[in-house]
Amino acid sequence: MERVHKLGFQMKTQPKRTIAELKELRELTGDENGAQRVAFTQTWARARAWLRRKLEEFSSEIHTDEAGNLWATLCGESDRALLLGGHIDSVPNGGWLDGCLNTLAGVEILRRINAQYHGKPPVTVRLVDWADEEGARFGKSLFGSSACSGHLDMDEARALKDKEGVVLPAALKQNGIDFEKVKECRKELANAAAYLELHIEQGPVLLDLDRPLGTVLGTFGVERHAITFRGQAAHSGSTPMNKRKDAFLAAAKMSPEIYRITERNGGVCTIGSCTTKPGIVTSVVEECRITLDQRHLDGEALGRMLLEAKEASERFAKEGNVAVSWDRLWQIEPILFNEDLIALCDEAISDTGAAPHRLPSGPLHDAAEVARAGVPTIMMFVQSLHGISHNKIEDTKEEHLEIAVTAFDRLTDKAIRWIESRDRGTAR
Amino acid sequence: MERVHKLGFQMKTQPKRTIAELKELRELTGDENGAQRVAFTQTWARARAWLRRKLEEFSSEIHTDEAGNLWATLCGESDRALLLGGHIDSVPNGGWLDGCLNTLAGVEILRRINAQYHGKPPVTVRLVDWADEEGARFGKSLFGSSACSGHLDMDEARALKDKEGVVLPAALKQNGIDFEKVKECRKELANAAAYLELHIEQGPVLLDLDRPLGTVLGTFGVERHAITFRGQAAHSGSTPMNKRKDAFLAAAKMSPEIYRITERNGGVCTIGSCTTKPGIVTSVVEECRITLDQRHLDGEALGRMLLEAKEASERFAKEGNVAVSWDRLWQIEPILFNEDLIALCDEAISDTGAAPHRLPSGPLHDAAEVARAGVPTIMMFVQSLHGISHNKIEDTKEEHLEIAVTAFDRLTDKAIRWIESRDRGTAR
Repeated sequence: MERVHKLGFQMKTQPKRTIAELKELRELTGDENGAQRVAFTQTWARARAWLRRKLEEFSSEIHTDEAGNLWATLCGESDRALLLGGHIDSVPNGGWLDGCLNTLAGVEILRRINAQYHGKPPVTVRLVDWADEEGARFGKSLFGSSACSGHLDMDEARALKDKEGVVLPAALKQNGIDFEKVKECRKELANAAAYLELHIEQGPVLLDLDRPLGTVLGTFGVERHAITFRGQAAHSGSTPMNKRKDAFLAAAKMSPEIYRITERNGGVCTIGSCTTKPGIVTSVVEECRITLDQRHLDGEALGRMLLEAKEASERFAKEGNVAVSWDRLWQIEPILFNEDLIALCDEAISDTGAAPHRLPSGPLHDAAEVARAGVPTIMMFVQSLHGISHNKIEDTKEEHLEIAVTAFDRLTDKAIRWIESRDRGTAR
Repeated sequence: MERVHKLGFQMKTQPKRTIAELKELRELTGDENGAQRVAFTQTWARARAWLRRKLEEFSSEIHTDEAGNLWATLCGESDRALLLGGHIDSVPNGGWLDGCLNTLAGVEILRRINAQYHGKPPVTVRLVDWADEEGARFGKSLFGSSACSGHLDMDEARALKDKEGVVLPAALKQNGIDFEKVKECRKELANAAAYLELHIEQGPVLLDLDRPLGTVLGTFGVERHAITFRGQAAHSGSTPMNKRKDAFLAAAKMSPEIYRITERNGGVCTIGSCTTKPGIVTSVVEECRITLDQRHLDGEALGRMLLEAKEASERFAKEGNVAVSWDRLWQIEPILFNEDLIALCDEAISDTGAAPHRLPSGPLHDAAEVARAGVPTIMMFVQSLHGISHNKIEDTKEEHLEIAVTAFDRLTDKAIRWIESRDRGTAR
């Protein structure tokens, strides 16, 4: 095998095996409503045990860290580690690909590397299956990866409760995890030289462009606010139109406005909910609360979008003789992936014969946490058939899944060489 | 007294007594939150008993009809009857004038007529205190007057329940009323020649014009609909703006549109409630339901307003690639008051030195039911200080209350003469 490596012969992954394993996992942990691998539940534990058996076939270095992340390691000639990541947990009634495609493609690639390099690749290669990416049970996503990056807010997490009132620390204890120690898993990133993640796109961009694969530039920064307009309740029959202080009118004007804001600045804006008080058919709306979610890959543009939305809300409030107030619900900076790895991802896609396309990620991913921890990071997206995820109808053409595993495997090789060349550069 | 009448000498009402009685009633049946005379409750029964004692001082013809309406009659030289109407019931935490101003002004005017004509006016004069105008307990207004007009929907009313689950027929039984017989009270209108009602305006029109009194042209017709836009839920981060089927966007565009519709057609339109599904910050709105209440005094204009709103909703739905459906919640035709009585009401207002002003009524009133029953009808409005009713802050300047009682008394005299002249006309 050593000789083969030296000749540059590339062993191949078997993408069809990954598809078969994805179906095996679906059979084991899904039902007629979709995937049910909610983190820290029995079904998730069953999926993890199944995954571990797969890994044990070729890796002797398998362990779960302090935050419940599962690591399988192929120790290389160098301690410098290439990480491949995914998450086997799902939302309730989830799709068959979100999260576990990454993990099982990683399993297949570790198999190939282990075989090709006879158990000793040039750099260390590790697969991580993050714990609770989805946050479905406790309402807070990226648990395992944010513990590892150090960004997990311990006070906030300590108080999280599921629908039955079970607090996160208690649920973790049942899974053998000591909540107060979860951040100790940070040490897993000590030798990390690069992090790669394959994921199904959770939108329709690649579908609309008819491209199987995409290179992800980073994850959007997010500004999330509640906007409350306050006017005056008044009888629908006896209040002349020009005397009204109609909170709904001002809030409603925000909806076309956010489309104009994205037209000018790019990014996306969403008004996801609207509530009205008193909310009866015979009264002008006294109070209207909407939520606004704004996202952009460029932090400066995101700030401009927020400012423009605030200015518009104040203009509409003034026009309608109502008051307006803003409350920040959440905020995160844009997280940009590594430029070298972006170029390598494009190359890996091209190598399969597909045309590369670069796009940002709207949703957050574990990759964002790893990038925040300073590890050079890249994600590859594979097309989603309906542009829909977190739903049992989530799907990708099998030919695209095969290309995805192949391209991700190519990216892994390129990343190994990139790490080697950087380490040589550092040594010089 | 006969001689006095023949000389045309006009005895006077004592408006200050009406104000004193309004305060007496407030003391008896209100608390720190306002009036509590919800129909078919003990407080309402206490108000009724108090009213009856007032009437018994000068009328021997007092009875409650099959629907619980209280009638006091001064039998005249002619059976032809002039009716004055009001309602002593209130909403919970209501104002001190809505409904009972009419009733107590009527009491004062009957007192004056009884004294002036020595118990025998030229035409029969009757005061009616309608039962449950507000519909506060069972959610359906104009109970007593719609039973009397014949328009009460018996099947609908039979099923009405209050918050405790008590059905209307059971509550009526506790008040000595047999639900199945309520429409028999229709006979009360047999000899009705005209109906007059004084009411506090439930809006700011007279306040803004600085007029104490107004002549009501009729009650608005109403078209009340729920409009549901259906698009597609999609992730707020991963769905490009031009791929969205945003149900909220289409619904929101309706809000400025209804202002444009009233600008073109007059009348009033109100979007009183908005609900969104799934209604979460991270999803494009899949389904948005708004309620639309449209009112106009002109039936043709009302129909046009409805058509324009429907066309706009379909245009916005098409623009946004979403579906729209309409469900009628309620509808009533405009009800126009009697032209002769409108002119007499203007005259009566002018007689007090105030400038007359004609306006429609947005809210419905018992007068609308009487008009629907074919009785020539008119209402007079008195200015509301804050343009607000159904609230403890409802108020009217005492000087305006005095002018109102005086003008309403003048209108009563003019209506008596009008009935006499019409009856003479019929006899010729």
